[in-house]
Amino acid sequence: MSRFSGPQDPAFQALNASVGFDRRLWPEDLAQSRAHARMLVARSIISAQDGEALQAGLDAVEAELRDGSFAFAPADEDIHMALERRLTEHAGPVGGRLHTARSRNDQVATDVALYAREAALAARAAVEALMAALLDAAERHLDWTLPGYTHLQRAQPVYLSHHLLAYVWMLERDRTRLQAARDSASVLPLGAGALAGVNFEIDRAMVAAELGFGAIAPNSIDAVSNRDFVLDLLHAAAVCSTHLSRLGAELVLWSSQEFGFVELPDSWTSGSSIMPQKKNPDAAELLRAKAPRVVGHLGAVHGVLHGLPLTYNKDLQEDKEHLFDAVDTLALCLAAAAGMVAGARFDRERMAAAAADELIAATDLADLLVTRGTPFREAHGVVAGLVREALERGVPLADVAVGALGPEAADVLERSSWLESKVSEGGTALARVRDQLDRARALLG
Amino acid sequence: MSRFSGPQDPAFQALNASVGFDRRLWPEDLAQSRAHARMLVARSIISAQDGEALQAGLDAVEAELRDGSFAFAPADEDIHMALERRLTEHAGPVGGRLHTARSRNDQVATDVALYAREAALAARAAVEALMAALLDAAERHLDWTLPGYTHLQRAQPVYLSHHLLAYVWMLERDRTRLQAARDSASVLPLGAGALAGVNFEIDRAMVAAELGFGAIAPNSIDAVSNRDFVLDLLHAAAVCSTHLSRLGAELVLWSSQEFGFVELPDSWTSGSSIMPQKKNPDAAELLRAKAPRVVGHLGAVHGVLHGLPLTYNKDLQEDKEHLFDAVDTLALCLAAAAGMVAGARFDRERMAAAAADELIAATDLADLLVTRGTPFREAHGVVAGLVREALERGVPLADVAVGALGPEAADVLERSSWLESKVSEGGTALARVRDQLDRARALLG
Amino acid sequence: MSRFSGPQDPAFQALNASVGFDRRLWPEDLAQSRAHARMLVARSIISAQDGEALQAGLDAVEAELRDGSFAFAPADEDIHMALERRLTEHAGPVGGRLHTARSRNDQVATDVALYAREAALAARAAVEALMAALLDAAERHLDWTLPGYTHLQRAQPVYLSHHLLAYVWMLERDRTRLQAARDSASVLPLGAGALAGVNFEIDRAMVAAELGFGAIAPNSIDAVSNRDFVLDLLHAAAVCSTHLSRLGAELVLWSSQEFGFVELPDSWTSGSSIMPQKKNPDAAELLRAKAPRVVGHLGAVHGVLHGLPLTYNKDLQEDKEHLFDAVDTLALCLAAAAGMVAGARFDRERMAAAAADELIAATDLADLLVTRGTPFREAHGVVAGLVREALERGVPLADVAVGALGPEAADVLERSSWLESKVSEGGTALARVRDQLDRARALLG
Amino acid sequence: MSRFSGPQDPAFQALNASVGFDRRLWPEDLAQSRAHARMLVARSIISAQDGEALQAGLDAVEAELRDGSFAFAPADEDIHMALERRLTEHAGPVGGRLHTARSRNDQVATDVALYAREAALAARAAVEALMAALLDAAERHLDWTLPGYTHLQRAQPVYLSHHLLAYVWMLERDRTRLQAARDSASVLPLGAGALAGVNFEIDRAMVAAELGFGAIAPNSIDAVSNRDFVLDLLHAAAVCSTHLSRLGAELVLWSSQEFGFVELPDSWTSGSSIMPQKKNPDAAELLRAKAPRVVGHLGAVHGVLHGLPLTYNKDLQEDKEHLFDAVDTLALCLAAAAGMVAGARFDRERMAAAAADELIAATDLADLLVTRGTPFREAHGVVAGLVREALERGVPLADVAVGALGPEAADVLERSSWLESKVSEGGTALARVRDQLDRARALLG
Repeated sequence: MSRFSGPQDPAFQALNASVGFDRRLWPEDLAQSRAHARMLVARSIISAQDGEALQAGLDAVEAELRDGSFAFAPADEDIHMALERRLTEHAGPVGGRLHTARSRNDQVATDVALYAREAALAARAAVEALMAALLDAAERHLDWTLPGYTHLQRAQPVYLSHHLLAYVWMLERDRTRLQAARDSASVLPLGAGALAGVNFEIDRAMVAAELGFGAIAPNSIDAVSNRDFVLDLLHAAAVCSTHLSRLGAELVLWSSQEFGFVELPDSWTSGSSIMPQKKNPDAAELLRAKAPRVVGHLGAVHGVLHGLPLTYNKDLQEDKEHLFDAVDTLALCLAAAAGMVAGARFDRERMAAAAADELIAATDLADLLVTRGTPFREAHGVVAGLVREALERGVPLADVAVGALGPEAADVLERSSWLESKVSEGGTALARVRDQLDRARALLG
Repeated sequence: MSRFSGPQDPAFQALNASVGFDRRLWPEDLAQSRAHARMLVARSIISAQDGEALQAGLDAVEAELRDGSFAFAPADEDIHMALERRLTEHAGPVGGRLHTARSRNDQVATDVALYAREAALAARAAVEALMAALLDAAERHLDWTLPGYTHLQRAQPVYLSHHLLAYVWMLERDRTRLQAARDSASVLPLGAGALAGVNFEIDRAMVAAELGFGAIAPNSIDAVSNRDFVLDLLHAAAVCSTHLSRLGAELVLWSSQEFGFVELPDSWTSGSSIMPQKKNPDAAELLRAKAPRVVGHLGAVHGVLHGLPLTYNKDLQEDKEHLFDAVDTLALCLAAAAGMVAGARFDRERMAAAAADELIAATDLADLLVTRGTPFREAHGVVAGLVREALERGVPLADVAVGALGPEAADVLERSSWLESKVSEGGTALARVRDQLDRARALLG
Repeated sequence: MSRFSGPQDPAFQALNASVGFDRRLWPEDLAQSRAHARMLVARSIISAQDGEALQAGLDAVEAELRDGSFAFAPADEDIHMALERRLTEHAGPVGGRLHTARSRNDQVATDVALYAREAALAARAAVEALMAALLDAAERHLDWTLPGYTHLQRAQPVYLSHHLLAYVWMLERDRTRLQAARDSASVLPLGAGALAGVNFEIDRAMVAAELGFGAIAPNSIDAVSNRDFVLDLLHAAAVCSTHLSRLGAELVLWSSQEFGFVELPDSWTSGSSIMPQKKNPDAAELLRAKAPRVVGHLGAVHGVLHGLPLTYNKDLQEDKEHLFDAVDTLALCLAAAAGMVAGARFDRERMAAAAADELIAATDLADLLVTRGTPFREAHGVVAGLVREALERGVPLADVAVGALGPEAADVLERSSWLESKVSEGGTALARVRDQLDRARALLG
Repeated sequence: MSRFSGPQDPAFQALNASVGFDRRLWPEDLAQSRAHARMLVARSIISAQDGEALQAGLDAVEAELRDGSFAFAPADEDIHMALERRLTEHAGPVGGRLHTARSRNDQVATDVALYAREAALAARAAVEALMAALLDAAERHLDWTLPGYTHLQRAQPVYLSHHLLAYVWMLERDRTRLQAARDSASVLPLGAGALAGVNFEIDRAMVAAELGFGAIAPNSIDAVSNRDFVLDLLHAAAVCSTHLSRLGAELVLWSSQEFGFVELPDSWTSGSSIMPQKKNPDAAELLRAKAPRVVGHLGAVHGVLHGLPLTYNKDLQEDKEHLFDAVDTLALCLAAAAGMVAGARFDRERMAAAAADELIAATDLADLLVTRGTPFREAHGVVAGLVREALERGVPLADVAVGALGPEAADVLERSSWLESKVSEGGTALARVRDQLDRARALLG
């Protein structure tokens, strides 16, 4: 019996049904239902016998889901209804007791929070795997030199290890962000009922403990209308994806014939349908291309929540596909980045040759003047003038500089000194890079 | 034989393969291949016999796709490779001639353009169906009054027909936008090869004519790197979705007990898992909630193209999922809007009672003073003072107004005159609304 | 002297110059320069005498900035160059020593981090002020009832205090997010030089301590290319703005004649240029309208960073306007929300009348059957049938329910019991609301 | 006199007032007011004498605005109120007649439409100037060769003219889009009143003709709530900005020492504060960086409109800043692009050397086999094997190819033939490029 007299329009069902995508929440929904049923027994809201019948029924449902034999019915609007329907088919009318003191509003929020919490942890582990791959690569290329670029112009030489470690520190911040997303999702909505709480003296702490939540949502209205934990996870995923897009862009650039700094392994590249010679860095390009997708999901969920009156509204159903795709995309990207970093073959000679560009020691030349007492701004001007003169005369900077500044200038322009003089904390001098490696290794335990 | 010595990493394939989503382009890919093969024969680039073998092979492939027996292989990276592989299994080595004078770069751009072109036309037809539903509803409620709102405050009364027609004009602009998107997609990329054109004297006009393209891409580099037609269709879809979100928001609002202007049909609403009395306007809420999703797709494709060097880059593979989902989402939303508009039962009494709020004739009272010679700004001030007095004294505005402005004020505050005095073009007076209906009917032919 | 032979194009300067917007960073830039200069002295990189001259010069510059007499020159590309130019005009060539061991790349990152850090704290304080306003309002309306809505349909009655507290918990999460943004910005970039570190044994810890940074950026490349702290603050601002948009939407809705739950104070509303009777909730509408702006800034900065090779690129200049406008917008919105919440006059009768809608006790009726032993799902069906019967017969639910379920049903449908039975933690029962108030008060210390 | 008893809160005014940014609409507002006043006289709604007084008053106001002496008052909420206030100060109480038959709702929509219409035309002219600069550059470098890239890997050689022309065709589509945006804005809202039309028999066609609108908004409700013309202009601006970001990215790339294809003029580059040798392509980087900003504005306006009930809501005030900044940003970017394209010095030798990479003729080698009868897919495999062999043996492809395929292979691998064989329409063969140039010149008239 329902309050409705007419059937639903098939076009309505096509728009409204979420079971096509929320079915992946079945493990969360089953875990929740088990914990909820146990609590109902503990609080004598249902009998122990009914509780056992429910657990047995849930066992049967889970078995079908695990072995792939679970059959969704056309009328299954969402995963919650599908599981309750099947439970009742297995367990009989007692299945109808499971929804006591529960609403789909707090139920779905709980499923999504559980999913987000575990997804944050899984993403964090994948971030750590990429950090480890980068650390290994940094150690393998500790003192390989390449130019550091600003404005994509050669600026100052650095060690490849130092460059790779820059990504490690970005990822370390991603770890922090994913941890915050996990904490944000670790607050139990269940027990809020439809919006106002429930008519039973339930034990929310017991459910929270069983499901591993760190706290209980303190306000039932907020509990069913809150999706901050989705936004927090999407934020963490978006920033991490943006970081990876920078790594992807650099791998693409460095794989070009013009740079020639790196060759990606065959296992991470592909050929062309028409040009037999091509070896394309597809995975690196996709790393670059995926960030806007994740950022798009973040913006879309903000849009869904924008101006939405409390409490639960159907609009909130639009949280899941964005969340799922962001999580999946990030996982693919992190795996790809780790694979490429592990397999990349760097070309020591090409990088060193680029780093040997004499012009990129110009700052060091200015600093030489500073140590002789010239104010930096003035020294900068002097050296800029020498650069211009060298370019106009078409001669090496050293030719001009030694004449103007004395033989010491030649020493400065000699390559090995450039990197090792960057002794400030966080600088590229080898001792400093080794400090970084130690710190980073310690972070990963 | 390939230039690669190692196999691809499974994680690379998971990221790189597009066949999971681009398989829906098989009709476009087959149509293109047929036209391409016919042109190769016409230009004597392949023999007539080979051409016939290719068409027969494509027939066999199509039959499998239509009856669902086509088996994708694990190594099928994308729909293009899957179809060529299967073609060659059917037709033998001659299948390898199909890719003469073609690259995947121009091939995929052509498939997507074909898809976008037809998707734009289909969306336009769905927009017209909704316009027709709105026109019918406007005619059924020609002289039903309700308040027009500004700032969600009752402002001036209008006819429901006038309000519904506002959406018709929004949709008319959507039609124009979809037509522009169609035109944008009606330029043939094929023949651009990988990026530079091809080594054969092909006949692009012949292919364009067979596939229904209105023009040929004039520059081969642009042809393979252009995705403007995707952006144009996403723009049209985004604006239309945003329009529908406003309609959805109004249906939600009007379905509330407080407004009570409309009851949505049972076939377009659903109940609550916990509250037996609920009848929820889920479809209207989803209409509201889907716009950010489509807007998100638009932003994401912009992001993909952002800063991308010419010509083809793998990043462009990220165009398809955004496009497909936007097209599907818009189709669902347009169908839902048409269904709800057709089935909505408006409550004449509730709307009329709300429109009878005397205060909403205050502007007409000011206009009365204008006709007596008072400058409008001064008249506005006088009437605002009367409103304040009435509110403070807790009496009807008429009580205060008649005393201050004479008995004519009572006439003005009488309801029927409010709407029919809005005689300006596009105004809510019935004659004007009938003009609109005629114009709108004519547009739909 | 410079390496450039030609002057810059005015159109280039119009695009390139940032002084039009980065001038607001002058306090941060001065603080940084003072700390940097002191450190240079401490490390004997410049003499104590030069250090004093620099501080005196910076005093003179600051005085001009404070009293508004500082004159920007047309050639001042950015705030850093403007201040250094003026410093040198005041202090003479020694001014040129200030840039020793510093680059604009680490300098600007440090200014922006300083700004973001303090902006996060200021926003947190404004969030707390709004929380306090909401707590006060909750206490003033502790036991006022109104309907809780799901799908904008009356669902279950709640206390207004409970509803207002839902926003307090959202804001509490915003506080956490702002704190995280502050921490993210509390890592000192200065000392990274252009990208590789500097040639001097500087003391970054000393600078960090003086400027109040909690840590030192561990990698010089990351230090100049990192803008995560901008993204983190924009995320916090975006989520908070989205929360406020929900509050704004509810105030707009509740201010409508149809709801009539609240009247905003005259000081927070405005009139109409044409309709003398109008009192428009402009501030509440803008609260709703501003969230997409802040979200847009977040998306734009992601876009700027997308695919950007390390290390510093001019693109990073696009961080500031987005950040500044987001910070300003959030400040305006938080102040508006606090003002409206403090001044809102709620209409106890209108809200109570809406909450007295008998249908919204239907769940309680089903729960009555549950306590009698009926499984919830079956009880839900029974009551839904009674609701349908009542609606079809046009009679109160009680008439039908008492006949079917006995006189106890009448008690359940009586209003006072509905709220007080929601005794679960976080529920709307008064005792639970008082718990919430205590917890929330404690949070604000 | 007003209906309000209390003054507005300063914090409310800070949020609510738009005069800080909408003041730039004064030319549009004056033009509209002049046309409106003339129409009121023509329709005898005000007297000819009053009409003359209004025009004289508007003359006085305009003079102040032009010479900068117009003083905004603290209470001026927006530009409309500021101008009407000042008009009344000049003209006396007759100024209050100007607002007869007009509301700020239709007034502001008309101002914004006027602005958007002219901004679209101005942007189109700037697009045409950039197209002309690109055409000139294409003619200057008609037969200069460089590699065409796919996946940033050298793919096939093209002429620089062909590459530059690719941008011309992108811009041609931008012109079409800007024209559509102009048409979208060329529909007059004025006459819609607050939302329902006005009580006077106004002549909207007369006003439209005077202001240059092509049509009249057919529905008063739609007229005041429509901002599609803003979205259409933002779409056009966003796509154009995204195009320019690709040009900017290529200029950055080509300016790198590794590519070395182009040197930007001194007038469009800048130096480093620390590295004297640097010459940074700042303008090209900003071209790349600005697209997300414009796309962000587009997304934000969608967000503002999302779920907004009809008719006018204060939220619509959020259209202007997004629109203005997008228009300004696009103008800066188009000027910068034209300046850089005109001043860029390409390095013929560096480009030619890169294009002479023998491997990039591999496709032509496969096509040689096709002309001998081998199916393309098989030919592709044969050549891929040769490439692999050459790479593994470290010898030129020619060494391997001549042995395997005969002396004809050497001819194919010789450079000049590669480009001229791309004879298909739109290909890079010189004759085809000349066709393009002719077509493009014709477009620009």
